[in-house]
Amino acid sequence: MAVRLKDIAHDLGVSVVTVSKVLRGNKDVGPETRRRVLKRMKELNYQPNMLARGLASGKTYTVGLVVPDLVHPFFAEFAKSLSEVLRKSSRALILASSEEDPEIERQEIRTLLRRGIDVLLIASCQSNLRNFYELGEERTPYLLFDRNFPHLAAHFVGSDDLKVGEIATCHLIDIGKKRIAHIGGKHTSPAFDRLRGYRTVLAEKGLPEKPEYVVLCERTEEAGDKAGFQAMKELLRRKPRPDAIFCYNDLTAIGAMEAALEAGLRIPEDIAFVGCGNLRYAEYLRVPLSSIDHGTGELGRIAGEFALELSAKPDQDPKSILVPPKLVARTSTMGKS
Amino acid sequence: MAVRLKDIAHDLGVSVVTVSKVLRGNKDVGPETRRRVLKRMKELNYQPNMLARGLASGKTYTVGLVVPDLVHPFFAEFAKSLSEVLRKSSRALILASSEEDPEIERQEIRTLLRRGIDVLLIASCQSNLRNFYELGEERTPYLLFDRNFPHLAAHFVGSDDLKVGEIATCHLIDIGKKRIAHIGGKHTSPAFDRLRGYRTVLAEKGLPEKPEYVVLCERTEEAGDKAGFQAMKELLRRKPRPDAIFCYNDLTAIGAMEAALEAGLRIPEDIAFVGCGNLRYAEYLRVPLSSIDHGTGELGRIAGEFALELSAKPDQDPKSILVPPKLVARTSTMGKS
Repeated sequence: MAVRLKDIAHDLGVSVVTVSKVLRGNKDVGPETRRRVLKRMKELNYQPNMLARGLASGKTYTVGLVVPDLVHPFFAEFAKSLSEVLRKSSRALILASSEEDPEIERQEIRTLLRRGIDVLLIASCQSNLRNFYELGEERTPYLLFDRNFPHLAAHFVGSDDLKVGEIATCHLIDIGKKRIAHIGGKHTSPAFDRLRGYRTVLAEKGLPEKPEYVVLCERTEEAGDKAGFQAMKELLRRKPRPDAIFCYNDLTAIGAMEAALEAGLRIPEDIAFVGCGNLRYAEYLRVPLSSIDHGTGELGRIAGEFALELSAKPDQDPKSILVPPKLVARTSTMGKS
Repeated sequence: MAVRLKDIAHDLGVSVVTVSKVLRGNKDVGPETRRRVLKRMKELNYQPNMLARGLASGKTYTVGLVVPDLVHPFFAEFAKSLSEVLRKSSRALILASSEEDPEIERQEIRTLLRRGIDVLLIASCQSNLRNFYELGEERTPYLLFDRNFPHLAAHFVGSDDLKVGEIATCHLIDIGKKRIAHIGGKHTSPAFDRLRGYRTVLAEKGLPEKPEYVVLCERTEEAGDKAGFQAMKELLRRKPRPDAIFCYNDLTAIGAMEAALEAGLRIPEDIAFVGCGNLRYAEYLRVPLSSIDHGTGELGRIAGEFALELSAKPDQDPKSILVPPKLVARTSTMGKS
């Protein structure tokens, strides 16, 4: 049975209010009483109730995290790395999943704010900003991660997605490919920036950018494999057929490679693939997948430290931290070694 | 800026205590004052602070979850499905990861209890029970999942791991295999029960059980692929060589299949594999993996409902809920179709 303030007050014949004042460091308790209360707390191994402590200090020692899909390895790995930083500072992590549904996301944000958190971290699935203007009115600071809103002055931690698109496209050109297509996402800043990186490199290298070589999909996360499969079916009908695909993420690449193999094509000889995310199983796939690693663990760690900073000093000018991505080349572009 | 009790009290010229009493449904406030307070709360769209509500009711509307590794798809999927149930009942999920380290687990449990949660859910990495005897002294009810302790009278939700071992082994016998080996786990109840299921079926079918065909690994989760690879290297040296392997989980199966392919064996003609967990990428592996699906989403849903029940009625006799597993057969046992 946990020791309560009431028990200590009872043992010493003082009021609960007095014990509570000692706990909060309130000065209007006499030194002898203070000494007796602290001694008894120690004897009973009293653990202060965080709820009570939160009400007294205005802090909850809690960080809220809203992700679109926890089973997506990116968000799971981010949450794991974040929780490690928070654990070391005795902060708790409250987790909410929006299931890529803007309405659920709004509801979860409201619930978290009402409950009381020190900082909110969110990879948003909203396509408009109204929600965040509302958030700006709150006293609770928030930090966007993974997905940014270009016209919103907010704190952000994410990968440098323009670079993701550039590195992937350069790599496909470096291995000698000429007809490079892109299976992309929609609505989110990573989708937009990765496409922009792809276009930048094509223009730089003097390769024509063909609109029919770009297919953007609706659901690239949970059902990314199916979306990638369908998009690839479309691209296989283009004449001439693309000889390389930069895919939005590893899951869409997995689906796209399935469609290519089904059509009897050889990877990478006939058609090469690069994904993004470098997921845990990328090396064990039917064709081990080349992927852009955007340093998920590092992102979680940086976001955790940023969140602690915001909880101590909520009023700061908006700051963006971008983590540089890097290529992990495997069979899907390099062939069997 | 969130509306506070203080603002409402100030607007109406009443005390904060009065407003707080109305909020908690306390009867010693006059009907006219009550009406005015409720009207003003509605006008200002007042959201009660959950911290304050928690202190008043003794509930925190919070469920604590401790998992060994969030990036493992089983725990991610469990957490996702659990959070869906909790969201519908306006409960928050506080997430902690033990990194398979008993000391971190103890620390996280202590932090969660001190913070105040209504129920604790835990897939423990402890090898002894002392921790749980201590937990039994707490007022906070707890629910074990995935990993049980046979000699502990505690609530439990998990898959029927004896059945997992039986179904996997039966399937390997059904496809004509005779020398069936097992790459298993250590220290946890699923590891113990899956091995027991494997043995039961061998005995029933009159196949000899050879101790040299069983290799138990230390880390089957995060580094399961590497553990499976090493274990398979050992099994490949046995004479005669096993012709089928029941692997503790999909990750160990992935590593084991790599070792078999590296040795030039054909899957499933020379050697067949069954894993457990049916992870999201099992069908896209180099050799699509047959696996025992233990209904992770269902487990999370059941655990969520059980947790809500325990938070409403903490004093209940220990209850175990086992979810029946089922086989998903793919190329690693059935060959290419």
